[in-house]
Amino acid sequence: MTMSKRDTYTPDSLLAVAVQVFNQRGYDGTSMEDLSKAAGISKSSIYHHVRGKEELLNRAVGRALDGLFGILEEPGAHEGRAIEQLEYITRRMTQVLMAELPYVTLLLRVRGNTQTERWAMERRREFDQRVSEVLKAAVAEGDLRADIEPRLATRLLFGMVNSVVEWYRPGARGAVDGEQVVDAVARLAFHGLCT
Amino acid sequence: MTMSKRDTYTPDSLLAVAVQVFNQRGYDGTSMEDLSKAAGISKSSIYHHVRGKEELLNRAVGRALDGLFGILEEPGAHEGRAIEQLEYITRRMTQVLMAELPYVTLLLRVRGNTQTERWAMERRREFDQRVSEVLKAAVAEGDLRADIEPRLATRLLFGMVNSVVEWYRPGARGAVDGEQVVDAVARLAFHGLCT
Repeated sequence: MTMSKRDTYTPDSLLAVAVQVFNQRGYDGTSMEDLSKAAGISKSSIYHHVRGKEELLNRAVGRALDGLFGILEEPGAHEGRAIEQLEYITRRMTQVLMAELPYVTLLLRVRGNTQTERWAMERRREFDQRVSEVLKAAVAEGDLRADIEPRLATRLLFGMVNSVVEWYRPGARGAVDGEQVVDAVARLAFHGLCT
Repeated sequence: MTMSKRDTYTPDSLLAVAVQVFNQRGYDGTSMEDLSKAAGISKSSIYHHVRGKEELLNRAVGRALDGLFGILEEPGAHEGRAIEQLEYITRRMTQVLMAELPYVTLLLRVRGNTQTERWAMERRREFDQRVSEVLKAAVAEGDLRADIEPRLATRLLFGMVNSVVEWYRPGARGAVDGEQVVDAVARLAFHGLCT
């Protein structure tokens, strides 16, 4: 085929192309034909790398989930008072989200039509649950306000952090610096907008 | 056709069905055939009500935008200090979002492939801009912290409020009460999670 280039893809570089297409067209709306066009290689070349598009989805959301669950293994997520752990986790979540932007974007859009999607949603809930436990501990230690129900507080906290995928575009003209975003999220979440 | 029912739709009830389908399948992924099936009336019956699916999109996002811009006309959005106006707007935005849940959900998902979508995105930016001005005024009056860049603060505030569409399901078992959500958003946004 004249449109095909030589297949020099690595697993990671093929995944990067696939994730871009999934985010543009939606996972359900993406065919192997779309992936073949975007990558510029034949469908059979793609099948040489992966069994199908669900394997690509699995690897992509797996990468996002590994990034997020990895945070919970770091010393900062265990040391000190629960409020310090929660602030550490919040900052690191924001960093991981920006570092793995297309992968986390895809994870957040997954809706549960296939086994991989249901697995990803289950893992997301598990992560939310783990963070919610830390938040509850910080309330119990008297460092966080008790007048917001913990599940609701966790949802709003995640809502704020996750919303960063909607507009954060590194390298864009006038783009804010990543560390500025991390500081802003932490300040707003823990101390609010008021002086 | 045996599957068709008598067309007893009003403009509002047909719109409600269309918005549900748009939110499930995505606007781009929805055909007139899909709308006809979901409504249980023929395509020509739908064309009796509207010129096409873009008109339905226009009405749906228009309803969400009217709800949001309506807030800015209310006395609470103009009276008192800027911080009081901003808190009023934040609370009302959260209320409108929950009251017009499917319409605001659709508005937030619009991506700009058609003229109506581009118009909706332009109006959203205009709304964000108006709220951002109130936030800036509150910083200038010394009531809001100056160490978060105002555009960034507005984005995170909207991110938190808008994230409510992801999980708020009125009437669901164990669902939180709408006013509890409004209070939680206002407390977190203005005073943060810390005691």
